[in-house]
Amino acid sequence: MKKLWNGRFKGSSEEWIDEFGASIPFDHQLVLEDIEGSLAHVEMLVQCSILSEQDGDLIQQGLQVIKHKAENNELKFELSHEDIHLNIEKMLIDEIGPVGGKLHTGRSRNDQVATDMHLYLKKQVQEIINSIDQFQRVLVNKAAQHVHSVAPGYTHLQRAQPISFAHHLLAYFWMMDRDKERMNDNLKRIDCSPLGAGALAGTTFPIDRFMTAKTLGFSSVYENSLDAVSDRDFIVEFLSNSSILIMHLSRFAEEIILWASQEFQFIELDDAYATGSSIMPQKKNPDMAELIRGKTGRVYGHLIGMLTTLKGLPLAYNKDMQEDKEGMFDTAQTIQRSLDIFAGMVETMKVNESNLASAVAKDFSNATELADYLAVKGIPFRDAHEIVGKLVLHCVETNIFLVDLSIEDFQNACPLIAEDIYEVLSPEQAVKRRNSYGGTGFAQVEIQIEKARAALIDKEAGTKVF
Amino acid sequence: MKKLWNGRFKGSSEEWIDEFGASIPFDHQLVLEDIEGSLAHVEMLVQCSILSEQDGDLIQQGLQVIKHKAENNELKFELSHEDIHLNIEKMLIDEIGPVGGKLHTGRSRNDQVATDMHLYLKKQVQEIINSIDQFQRVLVNKAAQHVHSVAPGYTHLQRAQPISFAHHLLAYFWMMDRDKERMNDNLKRIDCSPLGAGALAGTTFPIDRFMTAKTLGFSSVYENSLDAVSDRDFIVEFLSNSSILIMHLSRFAEEIILWASQEFQFIELDDAYATGSSIMPQKKNPDMAELIRGKTGRVYGHLIGMLTTLKGLPLAYNKDMQEDKEGMFDTAQTIQRSLDIFAGMVETMKVNESNLASAVAKDFSNATELADYLAVKGIPFRDAHEIVGKLVLHCVETNIFLVDLSIEDFQNACPLIAEDIYEVLSPEQAVKRRNSYGGTGFAQVEIQIEKARAALIDKEAGTKVF
Amino acid sequence: MKKLWNGRFKGSSEEWIDEFGASIPFDHQLVLEDIEGSLAHVEMLVQCSILSEQDGDLIQQGLQVIKHKAENNELKFELSHEDIHLNIEKMLIDEIGPVGGKLHTGRSRNDQVATDMHLYLKKQVQEIINSIDQFQRVLVNKAAQHVHSVAPGYTHLQRAQPISFAHHLLAYFWMMDRDKERMNDNLKRIDCSPLGAGALAGTTFPIDRFMTAKTLGFSSVYENSLDAVSDRDFIVEFLSNSSILIMHLSRFAEEIILWASQEFQFIELDDAYATGSSIMPQKKNPDMAELIRGKTGRVYGHLIGMLTTLKGLPLAYNKDMQEDKEGMFDTAQTIQRSLDIFAGMVETMKVNESNLASAVAKDFSNATELADYLAVKGIPFRDAHEIVGKLVLHCVETNIFLVDLSIEDFQNACPLIAEDIYEVLSPEQAVKRRNSYGGTGFAQVEIQIEKARAALIDKEAGTKVF
Amino acid sequence: MKKLWNGRFKGSSEEWIDEFGASIPFDHQLVLEDIEGSLAHVEMLVQCSILSEQDGDLIQQGLQVIKHKAENNELKFELSHEDIHLNIEKMLIDEIGPVGGKLHTGRSRNDQVATDMHLYLKKQVQEIINSIDQFQRVLVNKAAQHVHSVAPGYTHLQRAQPISFAHHLLAYFWMMDRDKERMNDNLKRIDCSPLGAGALAGTTFPIDRFMTAKTLGFSSVYENSLDAVSDRDFIVEFLSNSSILIMHLSRFAEEIILWASQEFQFIELDDAYATGSSIMPQKKNPDMAELIRGKTGRVYGHLIGMLTTLKGLPLAYNKDMQEDKEGMFDTAQTIQRSLDIFAGMVETMKVNESNLASAVAKDFSNATELADYLAVKGIPFRDAHEIVGKLVLHCVETNIFLVDLSIEDFQNACPLIAEDIYEVLSPEQAVKRRNSYGGTGFAQVEIQIEKARAALIDKEAGTKVF
Repeated sequence: MKKLWNGRFKGSSEEWIDEFGASIPFDHQLVLEDIEGSLAHVEMLVQCSILSEQDGDLIQQGLQVIKHKAENNELKFELSHEDIHLNIEKMLIDEIGPVGGKLHTGRSRNDQVATDMHLYLKKQVQEIINSIDQFQRVLVNKAAQHVHSVAPGYTHLQRAQPISFAHHLLAYFWMMDRDKERMNDNLKRIDCSPLGAGALAGTTFPIDRFMTAKTLGFSSVYENSLDAVSDRDFIVEFLSNSSILIMHLSRFAEEIILWASQEFQFIELDDAYATGSSIMPQKKNPDMAELIRGKTGRVYGHLIGMLTTLKGLPLAYNKDMQEDKEGMFDTAQTIQRSLDIFAGMVETMKVNESNLASAVAKDFSNATELADYLAVKGIPFRDAHEIVGKLVLHCVETNIFLVDLSIEDFQNACPLIAEDIYEVLSPEQAVKRRNSYGGTGFAQVEIQIEKARAALIDKEAGTKVF
Repeated sequence: MKKLWNGRFKGSSEEWIDEFGASIPFDHQLVLEDIEGSLAHVEMLVQCSILSEQDGDLIQQGLQVIKHKAENNELKFELSHEDIHLNIEKMLIDEIGPVGGKLHTGRSRNDQVATDMHLYLKKQVQEIINSIDQFQRVLVNKAAQHVHSVAPGYTHLQRAQPISFAHHLLAYFWMMDRDKERMNDNLKRIDCSPLGAGALAGTTFPIDRFMTAKTLGFSSVYENSLDAVSDRDFIVEFLSNSSILIMHLSRFAEEIILWASQEFQFIELDDAYATGSSIMPQKKNPDMAELIRGKTGRVYGHLIGMLTTLKGLPLAYNKDMQEDKEGMFDTAQTIQRSLDIFAGMVETMKVNESNLASAVAKDFSNATELADYLAVKGIPFRDAHEIVGKLVLHCVETNIFLVDLSIEDFQNACPLIAEDIYEVLSPEQAVKRRNSYGGTGFAQVEIQIEKARAALIDKEAGTKVF
Repeated sequence: MKKLWNGRFKGSSEEWIDEFGASIPFDHQLVLEDIEGSLAHVEMLVQCSILSEQDGDLIQQGLQVIKHKAENNELKFELSHEDIHLNIEKMLIDEIGPVGGKLHTGRSRNDQVATDMHLYLKKQVQEIINSIDQFQRVLVNKAAQHVHSVAPGYTHLQRAQPISFAHHLLAYFWMMDRDKERMNDNLKRIDCSPLGAGALAGTTFPIDRFMTAKTLGFSSVYENSLDAVSDRDFIVEFLSNSSILIMHLSRFAEEIILWASQEFQFIELDDAYATGSSIMPQKKNPDMAELIRGKTGRVYGHLIGMLTTLKGLPLAYNKDMQEDKEGMFDTAQTIQRSLDIFAGMVETMKVNESNLASAVAKDFSNATELADYLAVKGIPFRDAHEIVGKLVLHCVETNIFLVDLSIEDFQNACPLIAEDIYEVLSPEQAVKRRNSYGGTGFAQVEIQIEKARAALIDKEAGTKVF
Repeated sequence: MKKLWNGRFKGSSEEWIDEFGASIPFDHQLVLEDIEGSLAHVEMLVQCSILSEQDGDLIQQGLQVIKHKAENNELKFELSHEDIHLNIEKMLIDEIGPVGGKLHTGRSRNDQVATDMHLYLKKQVQEIINSIDQFQRVLVNKAAQHVHSVAPGYTHLQRAQPISFAHHLLAYFWMMDRDKERMNDNLKRIDCSPLGAGALAGTTFPIDRFMTAKTLGFSSVYENSLDAVSDRDFIVEFLSNSSILIMHLSRFAEEIILWASQEFQFIELDDAYATGSSIMPQKKNPDMAELIRGKTGRVYGHLIGMLTTLKGLPLAYNKDMQEDKEGMFDTAQTIQRSLDIFAGMVETMKVNESNLASAVAKDFSNATELADYLAVKGIPFRDAHEIVGKLVLHCVETNIFLVDLSIEDFQNACPLIAEDIYEVLSPEQAVKRRNSYGGTGFAQVEIQIEKARAALIDKEAGTKVF
């Protein structure tokens, strides 16, 4: 029977269908994990007397040869062998003969691929945790340099109250700290071995799942074999944690783009993180911040993609689940790179102190100070607000600021106002006096930096590493 | 100036714009949390001598009156007072006079709404954890009744290997256990007080944030005031955990729908969870399972909605964040109801044992047993597979099953096959022999049930509650 | 049998399960469409002699009574009657007796609900198209007032080239025009009658589907009854078109928020669209713009929700599909309100001309003009860029702008530069000279306004309506 | 200053940052479109006397050389040249010298990349429309073979009414028809030229945008230069249309997986679209159907990814928009491949007629026929339902079906039932009698096939092509 589409594809129709179904174009990234899992499995088979020592040695030697080639990028994967597992199996048999087939005693591709995924993601999440840590160090160091830099604090992108620039940076420190916490929580569920679950029901061979788990560095094993092969929660959870993390970066990126604009001019980015123009050498496009903000879409997309794929799937393994890999690979790389870039960008950016200072000097974000001042003097809130409102309006109309009012102007508005009002109105005082716990007061920010540094103590060495 | 759309709306244009911006139509659900937060705040203000005892008492009495009305659904909220906070403030002033305004000393709507949300979600997540727990009890009890019910195990929706029906049910027990774990991890980050963060920068009043946190039952306080008012991670995390949870339910729902179909007939649902037809009394539509599967979309939608809203938002509070509530409310209710319905549905469903038995008796899912049998006799895998393949093909062509073959047929195919093959081929044996840890072997399933029960021990009482 | 959760719910367990399954709490919004569909159906039944004229008259009278009550909000819907269809049926039988049951001859709830949805969405989309149209009129009118207002044009949120402010506004005109086009395309697929498809397979009664379609104002009928009852494409398409539309509004909202900030100060919003502060009367939070930007999440969420619900559903009707309504209702309302608010916000905002003017006067966005000037004089691009770069750098270092350079400075850099350079460098000239089709040149913008107005011609009247 | 992460990356820090920002690893797929756009641009520059004929010829020759190499996969792209545009520019200059730089007169990378995207997607969507068309032909041909194959029709995955199997297949025909319609609607908005919009504001050169549009085969040009470079609607719309399309395929895939299960056994898939097992040769995993169902996630993910990226972006070009490509490329390929695979899978699947026949013979899906029969005899609906309900219940209890009842049994239940009831109850009659327009009646299905074929007429040849 002549197929309708024959004209469109080279080769037999079967070839392109197989190509559609093959995962080797992307799952080859699991090559080292796959070999690691096989080495642990074969060692256990020998220990449990399921495989002879001789066969076990042969298989291990063969796997080591393949591993060595993998590390040197010398392996050639073939589409006809569908996935990483069959590719390695074929290489092993080519290397050591039919005995290679015995590697698969008491194992199925279903538990094998799940094992690879757990091993891979565990490494990735650990590296991401390191990258978060590095970024946090940059943040706390940068903050330490800017405790006394007073900057506008915004709500609704309107200037609301002056704050310590360090305080603003540290907000991101704590977001990252939660991201790290979530990644660590995720690890608990990644760090669990599915190996030995077989196709779905376990195996008839007297295997020891705890032994392979231990060899592979897993802290626990799945309690139920169906669950072990059909669970992809740990990936969805990773994609979700990554979505929250990059949402944080998108917020910071937005601010960096604003701060670097000609209208704000609060910072200057290092050349490495911006692109210039040969004819406008002063212009710097904040490319890296924009790109990371843009990559938020990619990560959210991978999350919704995986959730969609898993929706309504009956147990246990279904081919749909082959779709679990590309999004995970791409997300791990995107998150790690974005963190590293961000760390460098923040570390190297120059804070334009004088622009910050003139910004807070030329606005009405100290109006709250005046109201609080009146409240402390016993004036009811509502009245205090009215008094301040009138004064501000007067300033706006005459194009001056509150500090430009004479003491008479103040006292006409409210006789309780004294000379100390000028100190109260200074942005520095406004910041300093917000000394409630976690507030922007300089003393509080110093305490916060200590807390942040303490949170970063390298537990292994028992010492701070910066 | 005559506005273009004037004809379309009743009242002044301002009215419908205000309606668009108001949150009271949905945030009135936070009424009790809002009062609870205010009570803690006023108590602290008095303790810290920011408010006189007299004023404090008056405010507390006023709040108690409002609380009492709220509990009896006697409050009338007004759109003109925008949100729950201003509505309550207005009621308080109506109740006790202008002194009511002093409640807001050292507090802003920004930290107030964040506090309400933390209080609300903490309760909801605790209730959801209870619902998961109840569902797990149902699952383990149901499993305990069906350890020896042998059912087909599927991959690719094709029968693969016979399994214990209990084993299948328990797979969902462990999924739910991870869901509970994730909800508990989430709680750590919900259980943190933003109260006292002010609008964004803390406050100039000498408040004690630890005191209010303690009164409200929070375990910790936010370290950074900007973070405290702009953080909605705890909600996104909840929506993500809920998405994974309902994804699990959607998988189970899909299976229940399949099992209840005329083609499978593995279970019969209780009338309460199905809808019938007056003309086809035997027909039962698995409405509840379908509806829960359908509600997966709603929960995923709320997740992506919240992630989208937060993407790229500069610090600190922005009006966009008002969109954080409806999805959270709806998700909390959807998840809790879905769990409770599911528990009832599984508890009351009848398992059709005879249909399960005849299903596993009439297929080739025992072919793997024969192959393993040959492998143990020393036949290389590849050869074993070839032998089995030929026998199965012969059976298919003559319309019989493996157990119907004579011992001569077997021995012609491979002389190593002995009379014990018939026992090996029985589905019960196939299940029993998969005795690896976490496998479907009956002994393993019994161990697993013990593990599951242990995981459910009521820690407070120190005893199992079922 | 005592159910586990009995303690938690009032009333019998069946009650709260029924509540979970009922759609009347939201589908009552379809009441008028449901009655409209029934009126058309009964009329056809009589015309086709399936129902006697007498019965038909009785049913129509009964439906008219109910319709009248519906229009006066006098109907009481009951949860026990599950959905809008059964509620109306019950009311009809209460009104006219058992003959009311004959209304359902040759019809099923499956084609009935689909008909209601098509009728509802058709109206909504037509209203949304009107709202887009209104907004476009506002945009073009506003643009017409600001053709000669020169403003900075941005890429990467960095000033790139001066543009006509009208040109910027008109970019949104064309986005809205595509949105309108998409909604109109959507209408083609909404405007199709599923009535008469029965439960899934059509009916044995000699109905006339074209007659009901005509009565209801549908342009076509579904060709396949299974498709008719299981199709929800028209809703997904609406949610997708709405997502693109609100994405456009989110971009415009972002710009309005930026423009209204103290750093930009390009516009001032009318009080109705901003919230103020009693102590900072000059401060205006752009609440409406923020809220609409935030609502982007809600609409995207409904889109992904519906797509998720439909994924993998077998034909024909499944209870999952009950989830199709709430997202659609909410999206229709959100989009219409957002458009109307936006129209009012743009119509009433004040453009701060002098700030725009001083912005373009004080930057290097005219550097491109100089480079183009040199290129026209025959200097190779690369060299031209180098010359300009050096001059700009010199300006930056000496804190001046290009127009502040003397003619000698220019000629030292490149002898080909003549006195006319000063005119070339003016922002107005820069705009004027970008006279390519669709460019920002004033003449082009005038042409564009004509095109835009032509696109808005009221086809029915054959005249422009503004 | 030593950077923290230096140890982790080879080469200078700038290198890996540049790699993060480069798009050449994926946008090289636009190589032919980029050259096509440049050829049209240079031709226009000459025609408009902006470029000399000599320079124009040289550039065109250079571009042709590069095009030839591209077609033979001989080009080497370099990361250091960031994107496809700079890579080609560099190659051109290498080929013909500095004159190559003149190609970029009156053009910017912003309008250039938009042009490439429009050209690329136009081709892809046209190919997808062809693939839909092919699939529709397969569906209608398959349907034509199975008009009289009576199969169970389902609602809630419960058998509801017997239908023609052709009718079921044709439901997908019409879904695909709407998909084609949407892709064609999409084309209107893709088929529009942004070339000449410059960076954002148009250009000072006297270019002719209509000329390049015509050369490139575009039907229209963008009216506004800001819109031209910042619009990505056409991609979102494509991703949305693709999401609906693959949602349809996921529904069909689900059904194919069900039909191929041992419980249904309605179809047998061709070996090319299923994977077998060496030990269970009769077993066929419906891999392709599962994989396509799984790929639904990927496409939804790309949609939400792009929507997220665009949310809240100010005009005009931002680097975020570089994220527009990978999802589009992947979706175009996924959709086309999925359609082609599906066409082959449906074309080659065997329908198991005898299983369909025995399915409809052994259920109560003819109960509706009996009720309709009674209704026609004048029995009120409610009573008719009660009578049928009792009879069905009696059958269920005695393990027979309605057709097994004696005429006395029927007449005891209702004396109006006559001998013709047995014909009425046959599944064939049940199908045949549903002869309303679009219903499953055989005559209607034949009409529908004619309509479907008419819809597929090859307009160019004016004749049916099958």
